[in-house]
Amino acid sequence: MQIAKQFISEEAQILLKENDFARAAFDEIVDSICCNANAPSGQFIINCSKKDSNGVVPIKNGIYLQLEERYEWYREKPLQCFRNVSGGPIDAYKEFGNLDTPFNVGLEFETGNVSSAHRAMNKLCRGIRYGELQMGFIILPIRKLYDYLTQRISNYEEIEPYFDLYEEYPLVVLGFDADVYDPNAPLIPKGNDGMSKRSVRKWNNQ
Amino acid sequence: MQIAKQFISEEAQILLKENDFARAAFDEIVDSICCNANAPSGQFIINCSKKDSNGVVPIKNGIYLQLEERYEWYREKPLQCFRNVSGGPIDAYKEFGNLDTPFNVGLEFETGNVSSAHRAMNKLCRGIRYGELQMGFIILPIRKLYDYLTQRISNYEEIEPYFDLYEEYPLVVLGFDADVYDPNAPLIPKGNDGMSKRSVRKWNNQ
Repeated sequence: MQIAKQFISEEAQILLKENDFARAAFDEIVDSICCNANAPSGQFIINCSKKDSNGVVPIKNGIYLQLEERYEWYREKPLQCFRNVSGGPIDAYKEFGNLDTPFNVGLEFETGNVSSAHRAMNKLCRGIRYGELQMGFIILPIRKLYDYLTQRISNYEEIEPYFDLYEEYPLVVLGFDADVYDPNAPLIPKGNDGMSKRSVRKWNNQ
Repeated sequence: MQIAKQFISEEAQILLKENDFARAAFDEIVDSICCNANAPSGQFIINCSKKDSNGVVPIKNGIYLQLEERYEWYREKPLQCFRNVSGGPIDAYKEFGNLDTPFNVGLEFETGNVSSAHRAMNKLCRGIRYGELQMGFIILPIRKLYDYLTQRISNYEEIEPYFDLYEEYPLVVLGFDADVYDPNAPLIPKGNDGMSKRSVRKWNNQ
């Protein structure tokens, strides 16, 4: 896949310039997206014969697989600041720093509807505000790709108007796209159909 | 009804102290909520015999009726800053100031799910950021009342953890409650059932 659009807040730009951990987090996430392929050529090909026809779960899992196996990210990290309030765990998480200089990064892969993307941004920013996260990433498809995905998920362009509310938080939003649109490519199965079972690297199992 | 819980951001507190328009907006909204009654005593009584059994639309309409007829608020005000991007009109709107000193207030009545409440807060704050609104209000039920409302709407306590993300915006969130819980009170109809038709005071019709 490829990164087609990106928002890097003012705070995140400063971090990426000055902080090795921030750059490492950014590079690992971008690489995990770009390595996500479904063709021997190393490309990600999407069937564009019909709208709403490809599943998003296998795309998500392909990216997580890279993050977990290549870069040792964890999945489903609960935050302390949400312990007594509603709000589930963070989708993916990695601690880049150490006890003296923590640099914890949270990532949310948006597969909910557009308003759920607003909650995801707020969730990361609350974790940042409480000092449990030092940086947050949202990843989601751009609109062009979203058209061919089946679930009513959100897309980059839909939440783009709201990004300037988050300039003061170290937040990065990455809009990914397929490499090739081909009406004859195989459809991506919906849900978990046809996916091999694998053990997810959950935070609680560490 | 009554205001059971409220969040007044730091920015909104300053406005309420220093600005007559802000105080007028606050008073009109609080009054419209508190005047919303369904009993001759002037109280709002909710049937609490069974969870999820009362409709929320009539409650919303009761509050809007006050805002529109007593205080001349408008409904469904499109914002310029959303003209070319997704995001519908603001639920209710009133211009308190004048051309030299605009003081435009937006209100969102949350009847969507919890993530939709995040979007509503962001929508108002974006309007504020672009100078089209000088203050924003969110109104929604507290959890105790929400338990007896039928739609899977959001409640005050669910979004409360996120309020400190909005301290820098002039935002007020009001959590309302019924005056009386009575297992023998009539149920509030769901949807628009049993409601008399009235002409809504839409911004576009002015």
